[in-house]
This record gives sequence, C-alpha cells and structure tokens, in this order.
Amino acid sequence: MKTISLATVQEPVQPELQAVTRRLGDLSRSETGLIRQVGEHVLTGGGKRLRPTLLLLVAKMGGQNQDLAELAATVVELVHTATLIHDDTVDGSQLRRGRPTVNRAFNHSVSIIMGDFVYSKAFALLAERQLYPLIEVLAHATHQMSRGEMIEMDLKHKVETTEEEYLDMIDGKTAVLFQASCEIGAYLGHGGQHRDEFKEFGRSFGLAFQIADDLMDLTGDEAVIGKDRGNDLQEGKVTLPYIAALRNSPPEERDRYSELIAHPESINGGWDDMVQWVRRRGGESYARDRALAFARRATEIVAGFPESESSRALADAAAYVVDRPL
Amino acid sequence: MKTISLATVQEPVQPELQAVTRRLGDLSRSETGLIRQVGEHVLTGGGKRLRPTLLLLVAKMGGQNQDLAELAATVVELVHTATLIHDDTVDGSQLRRGRPTVNRAFNHSVSIIMGDFVYSKAFALLAERQLYPLIEVLAHATHQMSRGEMIEMDLKHKVETTEEEYLDMIDGKTAVLFQASCEIGAYLGHGGQHRDEFKEFGRSFGLAFQIADDLMDLTGDEAVIGKDRGNDLQEGKVTLPYIAALRNSPPEERDRYSELIAHPESINGGWDDMVQWVRRRGGESYARDRALAFARRATEIVAGFPESESSRALADAAAYVVDRPL
Repeated sequence: MKTISLATVQEPVQPELQAVTRRLGDLSRSETGLIRQVGEHVLTGGGKRLRPTLLLLVAKMGGQNQDLAELAATVVELVHTATLIHDDTVDGSQLRRGRPTVNRAFNHSVSIIMGDFVYSKAFALLAERQLYPLIEVLAHATHQMSRGEMIEMDLKHKVETTEEEYLDMIDGKTAVLFQASCEIGAYLGHGGQHRDEFKEFGRSFGLAFQIADDLMDLTGDEAVIGKDRGNDLQEGKVTLPYIAALRNSPPEERDRYSELIAHPESINGGWDDMVQWVRRRGGESYARDRALAFARRATEIVAGFPESESSRALADAAAYVVDRPL
Repeated sequence: MKTISLATVQEPVQPELQAVTRRLGDLSRSETGLIRQVGEHVLTGGGKRLRPTLLLLVAKMGGQNQDLAELAATVVELVHTATLIHDDTVDGSQLRRGRPTVNRAFNHSVSIIMGDFVYSKAFALLAERQLYPLIEVLAHATHQMSRGEMIEMDLKHKVETTEEEYLDMIDGKTAVLFQASCEIGAYLGHGGQHRDEFKEFGRSFGLAFQIADDLMDLTGDEAVIGKDRGNDLQEGKVTLPYIAALRNSPPEERDRYSELIAHPESINGGWDDMVQWVRRRGGESYARDRALAFARRATEIVAGFPESESSRALADAAAYVVDRPL
C-alpha cells in the first residue's frame, strides 16, 4: 500500500474537523474553576482526531446533516478523550500528545472525576438533543470498551495469552469506538442504510490500528513514537508479535522467552535480542500481515460504494493506519 | 420527628428490593475473570439501597410496572455503586459497607476501569430495552454528579466556602441521583405525571441526607459511623457545620479556627475543642435545622398525595434520613 499523510485523509472534512475543535474549545470555556482548567488542558491539546475523521467521512459519503455530524464527531472525540484520561491514570503515563497527562499535571483524583465528567458530558449532549439511536450505539460501545480494558488487566503478564484472547481484547478496547463512529456516520449520512458495512469498516480499521500500534511499540523509531520501545511489555501487555513469536518457537526457546516476557524487568539491556527473536520467529511479519489484512478488508468495503472524494479518503485512511509515521 | 427504622421504610417494597439484589447478583455471575471477581465484591456487598427504595416506593404509589421498576431500581443502584467505586479511590478510603474497598482489595487501576464498567452497564441495560426517557434522566444526573465532585475537589481546604457553594456542591454530588430516582419512579408509576413534585421530593431528601451525613462525621458515635470523627475535615471537606460556626464567630476566633480548618493536620489532639467550638457557635444546630427543613419539605410534598402504604413509607423515609443510626 502507498504511504499516505493524515492531512490527505482529512482533506475532505477539514472544515468540519475545525468546527469540532471549536466546539471542544467552547465546551471547556463554558465551565469555571477546576473543570475549565482541566477541560482546556485535555480538550484543546490536539490529537489526530481519527474517530471524528472517520465519522465525518462516512457521513459525507452519503448526504450528511452537517450540524448533527459535527455534534456527533465532537461527542465521539469526548468519549475517546475520557478513555485517554482514565487509561493514562491506569498506566501511570506521564505524557500524552506532547503534554503532561492529567494525572501528572493535576493528580489521580482529578483524572478519575474529570474522566467521568467528560464521559457523561458526551451522553448529556446527545440526550439534550434527544439523539437516542446515537446514545444506544455509544452506550453499547463504552460498555464494550470498559470490558476490553478489564480483560486487558486480566491478561497482564499472562504469557499464555492466545491470539483469540488478544483480538477479543483489542476489539473492545480499541475497535469498538471506531466501529461506533462509522455506524453513527452511516446513521447520519445514509439514513441508517449500509450500517453493517460501515460498522465492519470501522471495526477492521480499528483492529488494524491497534495491531499496528502494538507493533510500533516493539520495532518503531523511538524518536517518532516518543517513548522507549518495549513499553507495552514493561507494562505487562503481551501483544500479537510476542504471541506469534512464542507460537513459532521451539520448546526450549519458548520457555526462555516466556520467562523474560513474564518478568520484563529482567530483560534489562537485552532488548535488542528480544526484538531480534521476535523477528526471527516471524512475530513481526505475522502481526504486520494481520494488520494489513484488516486494512485491506476495510478498503474492500469502501470499494463497494460509488467513488467520491470521501470514499477515496476512507480508503486512504485504511492505508495510512498500517503505514503511518504515528 | 419520630425515630424510624430502615426496615419500616422498605417494608412495602421488600419483594422488589430482593429482586434488585438478585438482579445485581445475576449481573456479576454472568461475567467471567476479573470482572466477575470485582463484580461480586461490589454488587453483592449489601448497602442500604436507599435510591432503589425511593424509586420503588414512588412507582408503587402510582400503578407501577413491576418488571420495569425493578430494572430501573437496579440501574440506579449500579450508577450509585459506580460512583462509590470511583469516590473511594479518590478519597483513598479503605472500607465500604464493612468490606475492603475495590482500591484496597484490588488496586486503583481496577477501581477506575471497573467504575467505568459499572456506569456503562447501567446505560447499556437501559439502551437494550430502549428506555430512552430514563437514559435522558440518568445521563443528565451522572453529568451533574461528576460536576458536583469536581466542585468538591475545587473547594477542598477552602475555608471561605459559602453555604451557597456547599449546597450547590451537595446538590450535584448527592441530591441529583435521589432526584433522578424519584423522577424515574414518577415516570414508571404515574405515567409521567407529578414528575416535578417527586423530583423535588428526591432532591429535598438528598440534601437532608447529605447534610445529616456531614453532621454525623462531626458529632456521630464513632462506633456507629465506623470511622474516626472529623474524617471529612481531614480530607479537606469544609461542610455546613463549620461554615455556619465560622459565620457566627467573632473575627479573632474565626481566624483561629480558619487556620485549623485549613490545616486539619494541626488539630491533632484538639478534636474535642473543635467539636465544642462548632456547637458553641451554633454550627451543629444550624446544620441540623437545615437538614430537618429539607426533610420537612419532602414530607409536605408526599402529604399532597392520597395516603397509602407507600406514601407513608416515603414520609417515614424523610424522617429516617435525618435521624438514623447510619
């Protein structure tokens, strides 16, 4: 697949994305005190806005209602922001989008309650406009997301994690919100038609996104990913490249690397050896192939629709997600 | 007002409350792994079930739909449980309902994500049944609750907290969910009629509840409240008795106690003196009078309806809330 920039993908919905950024800014400015302070910190800090982008592109492929599409895109970005606030607290992360995380800039308590505030703001905005079908999609999605994160905690340091368990976990943790964004786009732009196709597009995109993300943690350029490689493993996350490499290793080797994966603190200076082992046992190529296959599935789905600026951008998004600078 | 037991209040809806307990148990038993483990810990641990009780009594005063009322009562208890999980983490509490808190028995990360899981379960259950008006009420309520908690954090250690700020904060933090429970009861049992009356009943009840709770922290029997008195102040919470006592003190005394309230760690052995000062300056009686006034308002509202077993229980609930062992 060709290398695509995020700007190319977002080109057809640039005005709408700017409106989303404006709406997010207005939300924090309408508050006072600590809420406003934290709100400005998390809502005006940038980010790639991938979920709003997909929602807006899907809606634009049909005949979008611009006001509703912008509102819905704002709402999915709020839900995503809320999960980031809680996730960063769970992981003890210090940086997010180049800024200190809420738990770092404020504290854990502020993170917990502000996450709840942002989540519930998303639902309150939809309830205010009585957008019940959107509430239904997002209520289901946020529940699946928290389930995925509980499963992720359950799987931590579990060397025997299967590919199936991994896929089920990232499906909830990541893919479900992309799926919901595209489903909402279909609802708003296509009058509810083609919901299933766009749901599958979003889910496939999300799975490709997460597998690519997990791969980047292993082999990415540290200057680009902005953190040490191997961070996931240090946090106990046994991702697809490791699962595949373990599966392909002879028993003795499997035992040795299982031990290291279960006790990542003992890897210490041996990180290059770990990466080379994953490569040698086909873990990197397997994960890349899986990500590409999901991205290809997403592209196929879009190819079933009449070509337009937006449909081309959605196909580009699928290429971008598996081959991005970050 | 006469002294009332919780059992008396709950008598008319005892079968429904048992069904709620059963439904909560079924929810955790339908899960696996860590979710089930934490779910059983938080959902089968008892609690007074005050919010379900009010919802069920209000619904029963009209002609309730028993299945829907039980579902809605289960949902408000889920929302309440989610807030407890997050609050205990924020406050670093160690015990809840006589059991270790989730943050103690598991850890902070599990608390954060499990709180999100329980919150979103509540909305997912309503969305499944397409109970949109209930979703609307609860989306608004949960948003107001997180707003109240953000304000509470903002007011921590702020000696100049006014009564108005305090009331606004407990309105969001506590009263809103009682209000929502009663509004839902009215919707289910009275076909949407008398919504405003029951909302005001719930709000008045909730304000009385929180003021009584805050008073108990100051003057309650430690054996009964199950924790050290003065806990709120140690956590930086400047509640109504202190606000009133400060307002009634001459300047020099106000300065002295302001200093202690702002730096509660310096109170040390001087707790009895603090309690005596609050009493002498009328802080205790003022807070008690305010709680009683809100409880009386709640009773007045119920008195406007035809008398029944359930209406008597609601009036009893208002008496109970300001004069309870806990």
